[in-house]
Order: sequence, then structure tokens, then C-alpha cells
Amino acid sequence: MKYCFGVDVGGTTVKMGLFSTEGNILDKWEIPTRTENEGEAILPDIADAILKKIEEKKIPEEELEGVGIGIPAPVNAEGVVQSTANLGWGYKAVKAELQCLLGGIRVEAGNDANVAAMGEMWIGAGKGEKNVIMVTLGTGVGGGIVIDGRMLVGETGAGGEIGHICVKRDEEKACGCGLHGCLEQYASATGIARLAKKRLEANEDETILRGTRLSAKAVFDAVKEGDPVAMQIAEEFGVYLGEAMANLAVIINPAVIVIGGGVSKAGEVLLPYIEEPFRKKAFFANKETKFVLAKLGNDAGICGAARLILA
Amino acid sequence: MKYCFGVDVGGTTVKMGLFSTEGNILDKWEIPTRTENEGEAILPDIADAILKKIEEKKIPEEELEGVGIGIPAPVNAEGVVQSTANLGWGYKAVKAELQCLLGGIRVEAGNDANVAAMGEMWIGAGKGEKNVIMVTLGTGVGGGIVIDGRMLVGETGAGGEIGHICVKRDEEKACGCGLHGCLEQYASATGIARLAKKRLEANEDETILRGTRLSAKAVFDAVKEGDPVAMQIAEEFGVYLGEAMANLAVIINPAVIVIGGGVSKAGEVLLPYIEEPFRKKAFFANKETKFVLAKLGNDAGICGAARLILA
Repeated sequence: MKYCFGVDVGGTTVKMGLFSTEGNILDKWEIPTRTENEGEAILPDIADAILKKIEEKKIPEEELEGVGIGIPAPVNAEGVVQSTANLGWGYKAVKAELQCLLGGIRVEAGNDANVAAMGEMWIGAGKGEKNVIMVTLGTGVGGGIVIDGRMLVGETGAGGEIGHICVKRDEEKACGCGLHGCLEQYASATGIARLAKKRLEANEDETILRGTRLSAKAVFDAVKEGDPVAMQIAEEFGVYLGEAMANLAVIINPAVIVIGGGVSKAGEVLLPYIEEPFRKKAFFANKETKFVLAKLGNDAGICGAARLILA
Repeated sequence: MKYCFGVDVGGTTVKMGLFSTEGNILDKWEIPTRTENEGEAILPDIADAILKKIEEKKIPEEELEGVGIGIPAPVNAEGVVQSTANLGWGYKAVKAELQCLLGGIRVEAGNDANVAAMGEMWIGAGKGEKNVIMVTLGTGVGGGIVIDGRMLVGETGAGGEIGHICVKRDEEKACGCGLHGCLEQYASATGIARLAKKRLEANEDETILRGTRLSAKAVFDAVKEGDPVAMQIAEEFGVYLGEAMANLAVIINPAVIVIGGGVSKAGEVLLPYIEEPFRKKAFFANKETKFVLAKLGNDAGICGAARLILA
């Protein structure tokens, strides 16, 4: 059997997994992310944990294909990051440093959202496909794009920033990135709560949402109850996201679009709201594109990181 | 020396080139495209021409790397087209058929617009870069995208259809593709002429364009004369194209955007009209993206086709 490791670095914990190269998760654990002193301990801690696991599992050198690692920042094709807000790092040659700490074991590094898309392609909702768009609807909107089985990295590692596609030119409120009208402003959990607030302020229509704490979860719970105002909010969200995906599909011509992140926990009820506006605006070549919910949840990162080694 | 051939199939002529694998054009010629009888002679004619050239130039078998071919239709990753309006073909396994006709010489096939982008990356305006967007402003708007040195093909060969990005949701006139508000409706030669017509009808402002045959060339000739109305038309075109490129760069994170096609013959005067709106709306990671005019003209197709063999 051949093995590979997948590492998903977050701001508080590092998720780690041992995989067979056929795509089975053999072991899974976490270590804390020590961000103090400019995060100098993070990579050594990861290397220690991997070397110990190799010893514990008695994995022979020739059966280990390598270690993949996902980082919450743009990572260029050489495995270098320029800075990461959450980890304390400035410039860091992640791939080269970790490879050195591991005594030469092969390392590949990527941006965490891009890496998650690789995970869903490998053993998740996009299994068997080679052209995959993954949209992660969380506090923000993240994304990853896989083209012919390879991660879209881009010139500086900033490829696939789906959340910052402009979908409303005349938006007055600025996005966190400084631009106006980014998809993230309407399709993230925060964005959906904002759409809900606006909709409730606009008129006095009766809705179970009134007087409650407005959140994406509350909106989709109310949709499941058949609340008409909640359904209008879901429709507005769906038009922004569905039309953005139609425009993106013109470029990527994907087999499947995977919807993940916290908002996707609403379940299958979500998909028709996105698919219907997509179908209306889809270029003829993309009429057959499938929409599916992500399957791997928090494991997408370690799975995709491990998959980097097999690319 | 190692050799490869590049073939660019058009509706009336097939352009052909012999290249060194270092990227020098050694020979260049054309044969007619015989589209009668469902285009059955097209691939045999191409094979004959290549086999004759191999004999004429006395190219030893072991020094020939292969033959690349660009087709004016979507071509999937297996080198298959489903139909081509201009060539008379229905389903055709271009790669496999041509390879058979050539006695087993390696063949790679791609869409002509995607292939042209590979050409500009190899020995044209994008030379030395690996992440390139090429936009071809002709009768329509075509495009090709190169990611990490590889052509973006897509699931069914319809990747990189830049002309059909929606840039105006409320457009009333339909695009040729049936959708509304495609980039092609504003940034093609036809689209620019339409913008000009609308602008001249909207008021009585004095302009040297009035009473002339409105075309993209006439507009940019008038821009060069300092005509204020022509400059307004160029600005409108530039906002559509520049903002569409900013949105596309969020996904692709390119090193360079190459502007080609008939409209680009206007020259350097064109670029600031596109770049200024691009910079205003560019995601921070893409502030450094360069804009350049295409260099290879009609040779981009044969160059890119030959480059397919080296991918």
C-alpha cells in the first residue's frame, strides 16, 4: 500500500490525516496551531507530528508518497506564501521549509479553499469528475476550481477567488476587500442575513423571521416552514449566486458545481434556488452542469491536501 | 533538431506551419478547406500535405514530435468535436482520425481560440508567462485561457468562452447565442459599431463620425484624431471590456491579458481605454496584471497548434 498525509492549517488547530493513495482515510487527528512568535513553531510542530505518525504506523520510506498542506492564504505554484493574517507568518516558503523539516519527504502546498475543491473532487461530491467548481458559503464566500484534475492556482496564488466576482455594479456598501458588489456581500452567511434585514425593513409583510435574530440558518429554516418572505430572501440570494455561477461556467465549463460551507448545511432545499437562475442564464454548453452539496465537511481540507501529492 | 507541425483549420483555408520545438517557424503554407460532402476531405488533405512536407524536408521520424491542430469549434480533452458549422462536420474524432491518417504520428487537437492563446504564450505577446488570458476582438469576441502553461479546455471543450460573459443583465437585444448582455454585444467590431450608432442617435453632438459608415476602425481612427464623441464610444467599450477582465482576473489571476483580433489593429491607443476601468475594479491580487497587444496576428493559430505538442 502507498500512503500520503494531508494537513489543513487553521488559525487555532491544524487538522491532519493519513491516507492511502486510493483515497481511504486511515487516521485523523489535530494539533494546536501555535501562532505566537510569528508562527515559527507551526511547521516544526506539523513535521514532528508526521514523523511520529510514520514511526507509530511503521510506514516504510518507499511507501510514503508525500505530504500535502493547505494554508489559509494565497500560495503560489512554488508553494510560497507572502503573508497570512491568521498564522502570524510573513513571507514563508512553506513547501521548501516543511520538506526540509521532514528530511526530504515530498511536500506540496496550496491555498485551503482551492485544496478543499481538490478533496471534493477526489473522494467527495465531485468524485469521478475532473472539472469542478466548489463554492464555500461561510462567513465569507470562498472557492476553489479544478480544471482537468488540477487546481487553478493563478500567477500569485490568488486564482479562484469566487467570492469577489462583482455581481452588482451599483452597490454602495464596500466589501471587506474594498471593492463594491462582490458575490460575498450577498451569498455568504453574513450576506444572506443582510438581505433578510433589508427585506424585513422594506415592508411590514408577515413572517416568522420578524423579531428573531436574522441569520442564514434562520432564513432557510423559515423556508422549510414555507414562510413566503423567507422564500423571497432565498430567491434573491439564489439569483446572485446562480447567475454568478452561470457566468463562471462560461469560462470554466465545469462538469459539476459543489456547494459547501456552513450555509450548505440547510441541505437540498438550497439547490433549486441556485439552479433555477443558473439554468436561465447558462450558456448552451453548460445547460447540463450538475449542482451538488459538498460531502466532506471539515475533512475536505485534509483530503484535498493529501490529493495534491497525487496530481 | 526536433520538429512539430501546427495546423489551423478555417472555413476557407487551412493554414499550416513547420516549427522547431524551440519555437522557430521554419515553413508556412496554406491549402484550401474542402468543406463539400460533410468536409470528408479536410483531414486527408491535411495529412497529405504534412506527409509531403516531411518527405520534402527529409525530416527523420525520430525528430518529429507531432502535429497540433486547431478547429473552429469546441474540442474536448479527447480531441473530439460534436459538430462544426463551418466545416460540414458532425461528430468527428479529429485527434484519432488524423493520427491514423498520419500513420501514428502523435496528434493533439484544440479549439482555435484556445489554441491561439497558447501561441501567444509560446512565442508571442505572452512569451515567458504561464498564466495568460487572450481576448480576440473580431466580428465576435473569442478567447482562450492558459493556466500554468496548459490550455483551459473544460468538460465539453467549451471553456474560455469569454465573449459570452454577461456584462449587462438588462440588455433587451439578444446575443447570437440566445442570451442577453454578452460581452460580445459591446466589445466586438460589430458591438463597437452598435455602440457608435446608439451614441450618434442619442444627440446631435458634432463628430467626424457623422455621415460615415460606422465601424470599429472608424471609431478608433476618429479617436486618434481627437474626436470627443469617438472617445466617449471608446470609453463605453473600455468599461464593458475592462470590468469584464477584472471579474475574470478574480478567477484566473493571470500574469498578462493579451488583446488580439481585428479591433486590436487600432494599436496602443486601445489599451488605456481597457486598462483604466480594469484597474478601478481589479481585486488587489490583480493590480499588477499587464495588458499587451497580440503579436502573432494570423499566425497565432499555427503557432499555438504546434505548441500543443510540447504541453
